[in-house]
Amino acid sequence: MDPFFELTATKTGSGSPDSRAPGSRARAGILHTSHGDIPTPVFMPVGTAGAVKAVSPRGVKEAGAKIILGNTYHLYLRPGCDLIDKAGGLHRFASWDGAMLTDSGGFQVWSLETLRTITEAGVEFRSHIDGSKHLFTAESVMEAQRKIGADIIMAFDECTPYPSTPEQAKHSLALTQRWTERALEWLGKNPERHGYRQHFFGIVQGGMHLDARARAIEHIAAMDTPGIALGGLSVGEPAEIMYEVAGHCTALMPPGKPRYVMGVGTPSNLLTLVGLGVDMFDCVLPTRNARNGTVFTWDGPLHYKAARHAQELDQPLDRRCSCYACKNFSRAYLRHLFVAGEILALELATLHSLHFYQDLMREARAHIVAGDYDTWSAELLARWATPEVRGA
Amino acid sequence: MDPFFELTATKTGSGSPDSRAPGSRARAGILHTSHGDIPTPVFMPVGTAGAVKAVSPRGVKEAGAKIILGNTYHLYLRPGCDLIDKAGGLHRFASWDGAMLTDSGGFQVWSLETLRTITEAGVEFRSHIDGSKHLFTAESVMEAQRKIGADIIMAFDECTPYPSTPEQAKHSLALTQRWTERALEWLGKNPERHGYRQHFFGIVQGGMHLDARARAIEHIAAMDTPGIALGGLSVGEPAEIMYEVAGHCTALMPPGKPRYVMGVGTPSNLLTLVGLGVDMFDCVLPTRNARNGTVFTWDGPLHYKAARHAQELDQPLDRRCSCYACKNFSRAYLRHLFVAGEILALELATLHSLHFYQDLMREARAHIVAGDYDTWSAELLARWATPEVRGA
Repeated sequence: MDPFFELTATKTGSGSPDSRAPGSRARAGILHTSHGDIPTPVFMPVGTAGAVKAVSPRGVKEAGAKIILGNTYHLYLRPGCDLIDKAGGLHRFASWDGAMLTDSGGFQVWSLETLRTITEAGVEFRSHIDGSKHLFTAESVMEAQRKIGADIIMAFDECTPYPSTPEQAKHSLALTQRWTERALEWLGKNPERHGYRQHFFGIVQGGMHLDARARAIEHIAAMDTPGIALGGLSVGEPAEIMYEVAGHCTALMPPGKPRYVMGVGTPSNLLTLVGLGVDMFDCVLPTRNARNGTVFTWDGPLHYKAARHAQELDQPLDRRCSCYACKNFSRAYLRHLFVAGEILALELATLHSLHFYQDLMREARAHIVAGDYDTWSAELLARWATPEVRGA
Repeated sequence: MDPFFELTATKTGSGSPDSRAPGSRARAGILHTSHGDIPTPVFMPVGTAGAVKAVSPRGVKEAGAKIILGNTYHLYLRPGCDLIDKAGGLHRFASWDGAMLTDSGGFQVWSLETLRTITEAGVEFRSHIDGSKHLFTAESVMEAQRKIGADIIMAFDECTPYPSTPEQAKHSLALTQRWTERALEWLGKNPERHGYRQHFFGIVQGGMHLDARARAIEHIAAMDTPGIALGGLSVGEPAEIMYEVAGHCTALMPPGKPRYVMGVGTPSNLLTLVGLGVDMFDCVLPTRNARNGTVFTWDGPLHYKAARHAQELDQPLDRRCSCYACKNFSRAYLRHLFVAGEILALELATLHSLHFYQDLMREARAHIVAGDYDTWSAELLARWATPEVRGA
């Protein structure tokens, strides 16, 4: 059987193959799942409630995505894990034949703040939909993820708030570690339900405290989980701190495991973190922003709903993009649809944004393999650091 | 050059070809436009503001539609006819390479009731969007339709209210006739703008008064417009009265012209009216209902958002349908998406509804040509006359 994760040889300055581009910590790899191989670095579109918002599975696939994310918290509440189990898992329920990852719901219930109580057992919370009471434990969310049946499932963790004291971070981390141990124990006793492998990722917490992060990595590395995630990033800290923490962590992480930064981010975040050795990402940003009137392009963010695009009949959202939206429609048309409240605006903008994120990761990988990732990404980061490039 | 409309030979009881199925007034035909041939009877999906709501042009095409409708009133207000003109017409603006028909806005401004004043010149109205004042005249809406560039354009008419007195109907009809004459005069002096033919349809008004309708038909037939529409139907009258009026009219209409009943209707309405010799339809019903939780199926309407469908994991919306939604998703999934507020529910339900309406007209045509339309449609009408067929 293939290993779950393999690093891909890249061209180094010396001419000999290595897994990193020269002068860079960026890595290219492949995740092998029962629902297909996934080249890394990879961005996973978020399909919160069993659907990537505003696009169909064939649209997601057309954008180039080979893996999407589902939220255990949302799916548990609606339509319920038992129904998904009965359907044969979320792949079949949602007609998605690519790979899938589910989070554990840890972040969502933690975000409920006034609606939840955290104890050693787990998190008791009230549904944001109807106020009903529920309990998530380290074990119950594993069972939920077994039923949902994603190819990659995540530990139940407590997110460390930002800012946090070293004491808070230590306490929160210890809880996450105990929950992770309980999760692994439960998983060891309860096999997969849908006839294919589910790969478990531990989650590194520890706030912005580098020593706590280091201890967390040591703990998870010792457990030898198939992959390791960095949680508790992009929770309000400046980007520079996120990069510092992530870079510190990836230097300590075992090179043979995929590294997943959860809930991040902008195209610039992705390129910077890829340069620090991160392999996997997910974020609602491209899809949510698209529905709110902004898409990312190779020239930077574009507020396509803005009045200044009303007359741009000859320009697509992104001249470099080959997606259905860019090949067929002008900014003027997209802007018109958005202003007129047409759902099609949201679909087309989402299609483009997904396509762009997939292209970005595909090109990033090609440059890592070619050995010029840092030069390539530095140019883009500089371009995107300036305000929106208008028209032209 | 092909004629604009041709009747198709059908199998008659005697074995000799005729344009009607035996024992039926149903007709099969073909509309020839610069954007493709359109077999009739035909249902035209409504693309109010330059987009069929919730689906992309490729989705509309996949459903089998060869012609869609645009609303001059909506397009005039937003994005404006000049922008569409500058784009090279609505086909190019909206990336729709099939055929297109625009209404004149007559029905929309008439519907504004408290926001409009009807005079001999035309209709002065306030925009439903921002309250701004506008004037539509018989001439100005022809200019608007020239700019929008549909393959079929409609006369500016005053809709006769229901119920109406013979006096009201007579007065309203006379106004429509004068406006139609003015429209034709304007069109004669102002050529097409986008390099292809625009075919003008007169509109028959006259309320439910059969003599007024007869006079209207005589007037329009004398003008020899490429097609004739029946307006002022489905404005609140019982279906039986609509059928009586329509049947009365089609019997008087020149057989060589396409007949278009505007703004109708349910699958049963369509089958009945096809049986009375109507060739063309448009209606927001399939798309609007789909967005509100109901689709039409071969077994009758299906309230897919209803709780009773929550567990139907093995049933598509419609077992007989081959659309993307029916081939890939269960009722349970569609119901979940709708309840969770996912836009994808609206897209999938709309795709199905469009597909169903197109299939319905395609099958109707095949049965007209085969000579058994009345038997076939009677069976369906009986099936749909019963309440929703549940499950099974």
